[in-house]
Amino acid sequence: MAEFTVDPFADRYARRAAGMSASEVRALFAVASRPDVVSLAGGMPFVEALPIEHVVEVAEAVLLERGDVALQYGAGQGSELLRRRLAMLMAQEGTEADPEDLVVTTGAQQALDLVGKILIDPGDAIVVEAPAYVGALSAFSAYEPRILQVDLDDDGMVVEQLEDLLVRGERPKFVYTVPNFHNPAGVTMSRGRREQLVALCREARVPIIEDNPYGLLRFEGDPQPTLRSLDPHNVVYLGTVSKVFSPGVRVGWAVAEPGVLQRLVLAKEAADLCGSQLNMLITERYLDGEAWRRNLEGLVETYRRRRDVMLAALPERFPADAEWTRPAGGFYVWVSLPEYFDTPTLLAAAVERKVAYVPGTAFYPDGRGRQQMRLSFCYPTEARIEEGVKRLGELLADEEELYRSLSR
Amino acid sequence: MAEFTVDPFADRYARRAAGMSASEVRALFAVASRPDVVSLAGGMPFVEALPIEHVVEVAEAVLLERGDVALQYGAGQGSELLRRRLAMLMAQEGTEADPEDLVVTTGAQQALDLVGKILIDPGDAIVVEAPAYVGALSAFSAYEPRILQVDLDDDGMVVEQLEDLLVRGERPKFVYTVPNFHNPAGVTMSRGRREQLVALCREARVPIIEDNPYGLLRFEGDPQPTLRSLDPHNVVYLGTVSKVFSPGVRVGWAVAEPGVLQRLVLAKEAADLCGSQLNMLITERYLDGEAWRRNLEGLVETYRRRRDVMLAALPERFPADAEWTRPAGGFYVWVSLPEYFDTPTLLAAAVERKVAYVPGTAFYPDGRGRQQMRLSFCYPTEARIEEGVKRLGELLADEEELYRSLSR
Repeated sequence: MAEFTVDPFADRYARRAAGMSASEVRALFAVASRPDVVSLAGGMPFVEALPIEHVVEVAEAVLLERGDVALQYGAGQGSELLRRRLAMLMAQEGTEADPEDLVVTTGAQQALDLVGKILIDPGDAIVVEAPAYVGALSAFSAYEPRILQVDLDDDGMVVEQLEDLLVRGERPKFVYTVPNFHNPAGVTMSRGRREQLVALCREARVPIIEDNPYGLLRFEGDPQPTLRSLDPHNVVYLGTVSKVFSPGVRVGWAVAEPGVLQRLVLAKEAADLCGSQLNMLITERYLDGEAWRRNLEGLVETYRRRRDVMLAALPERFPADAEWTRPAGGFYVWVSLPEYFDTPTLLAAAVERKVAYVPGTAFYPDGRGRQQMRLSFCYPTEARIEEGVKRLGELLADEEELYRSLSR
Repeated sequence: MAEFTVDPFADRYARRAAGMSASEVRALFAVASRPDVVSLAGGMPFVEALPIEHVVEVAEAVLLERGDVALQYGAGQGSELLRRRLAMLMAQEGTEADPEDLVVTTGAQQALDLVGKILIDPGDAIVVEAPAYVGALSAFSAYEPRILQVDLDDDGMVVEQLEDLLVRGERPKFVYTVPNFHNPAGVTMSRGRREQLVALCREARVPIIEDNPYGLLRFEGDPQPTLRSLDPHNVVYLGTVSKVFSPGVRVGWAVAEPGVLQRLVLAKEAADLCGSQLNMLITERYLDGEAWRRNLEGLVETYRRRRDVMLAALPERFPADAEWTRPAGGFYVWVSLPEYFDTPTLLAAAVERKVAYVPGTAFYPDGRGRQQMRLSFCYPTEARIEEGVKRLGELLADEEELYRSLSR
């Protein structure tokens, strides 16, 4: 985007847009996308592992056999065949879903936007985790809520804190959670916490928004039941094919009870009329058959090894008093550094040393997270992960004295 | 969607969503999609004319040569190559655009949503035409504006009425217009009116949102300059490939000055992270070369003939005191019936006779349009258009007495 000095629209923006501006972190990430920088920042799935010849066959068949449908407008709710496949994906994790209760969205991100749109009035309280997925914070913020945060520990959301909020009289429009392999925290909500959360929210009549992009990327241990399966009437479930197939087709979905679903569909139509039929048909056909399962098994194995490499490198390279989570799946490790470090300011030096991460501040709306960083192990090779953690560790060692003296 | 009785979320919705509910017209359209019904309702382009073998080659090449990019996340603004092609499309109509000033959206519909999101606070006035594109009304309404309408005549927007509004002290956030082959009215803004509108809005510091989906579908006469070319600093331009290529790829765009553009990109990222790289690469490559031009020439010829058939059938079949517009391009004829008719209630009987249209009320937020209907000539064959107009004409003749007596 070109530079500018005077904005002739400066007094025309809506309140929600006045504060929208590109962050410094954003500018650094532009630099960090150069190939010589090891990026532990992005959440890009390893699409290089996809069976590309098979995807080509799928696209060809869709265009030749159903070109008139693929290239035309479609229904706002999404095609029925695809909705059935997406319900089948949910069944893999033991969640029953009626394809009639499902709306296809432009990635799960659009589902977050639509949930915000139909539920949030300016000033309404909503509850998210601390830290919380940065994309959810952006999506919801457009509707001007008061964002309340509830801490995470190794068992996921600390439900007692939510209970305290409710006791203090807060009546949030909803509670938003990523129960499996949390972004950015890497933790997974325990069975006990799930039951506790669902019971509390049912009792208090606070809907739960369950965002589950990583659920099928489990490296070890038993799957936990989804919140939706524990209490379908009070949970809106969000899914995506970005991690099990491809983010390039922008196919996500929401499952909700009829009243909510109807509003999500109408809001979806107002937002972009309908999803891409071409992408929906390609996704539907890719998820038909067995190739996707083999690919997913391979991906889980790849991600597991990459996580292992990162978890092995961290104690070797990072300060002795740093701490990090040990994710049982997904994409992310969440690192807490000694308190004298400041991850937002450290990022420029990191990029100079050709390694990138996401500063923890991105995941809090209130300025917290200055000692935290999110490290992704999904995309770089094992060797690059080792190299990236090494570069970061050297940076932390070299900068320790400086940051210690600054914090005094 | 399943039926439901009690909505447990009933007291949780945002104000903007409380009124969202599926209309009766919607239920009728579900019936109208049956193949024995001649639909003069939908705005579906005639994608059957696309060179499908060529599209298959394009998709294949994209996946084989750039699969890793096509199936991955991309930048919120959209790929640079595609932005260059879209700027080239604008150059076909004589409008210069810098690809840097362009953001790719999920169809032009998403651009409408994003424009509403960054500009409208609840209660803000905005100006649209009377009648106005129904999708724009839905998109903007989510942000709770006061919608002011300015009439159209055969030369497009009656700019004097806009001037009166401004003189009365209204300060709208923007004026929204479809200057070419208006949806639903079929009229085109004259050169004089364009200059008048642009000068008035510049003077009053009211931004113009120019929505131009049909500009390249001109059947006769000389193209008019786009509003953006007359005053780039005060006009946000919206385009789409839905009519020159395919709506199934969901590729639209907005061109705006840097301050607005930056907010549109950030709002786009909050809404769905990024567009589909696969669709963007396919569209970019389809618009490279000459095949798309030949296809477009053929399409324009097809639509022109279909319009001619509709304009020839109307005086034969419709009541003598009905009136309609004579579009020089695009998809739609706008019919005004004698005042005793009521197009929303007439629709059920029309669908029973196996013909469908869109009642005029869809295009006004204030209940007007009960004597109007929008007829589309874009999708049905010439024979089907003749048959559809015949069925409608017979219905009007048969119902005339009834409606006359009801209106007394």
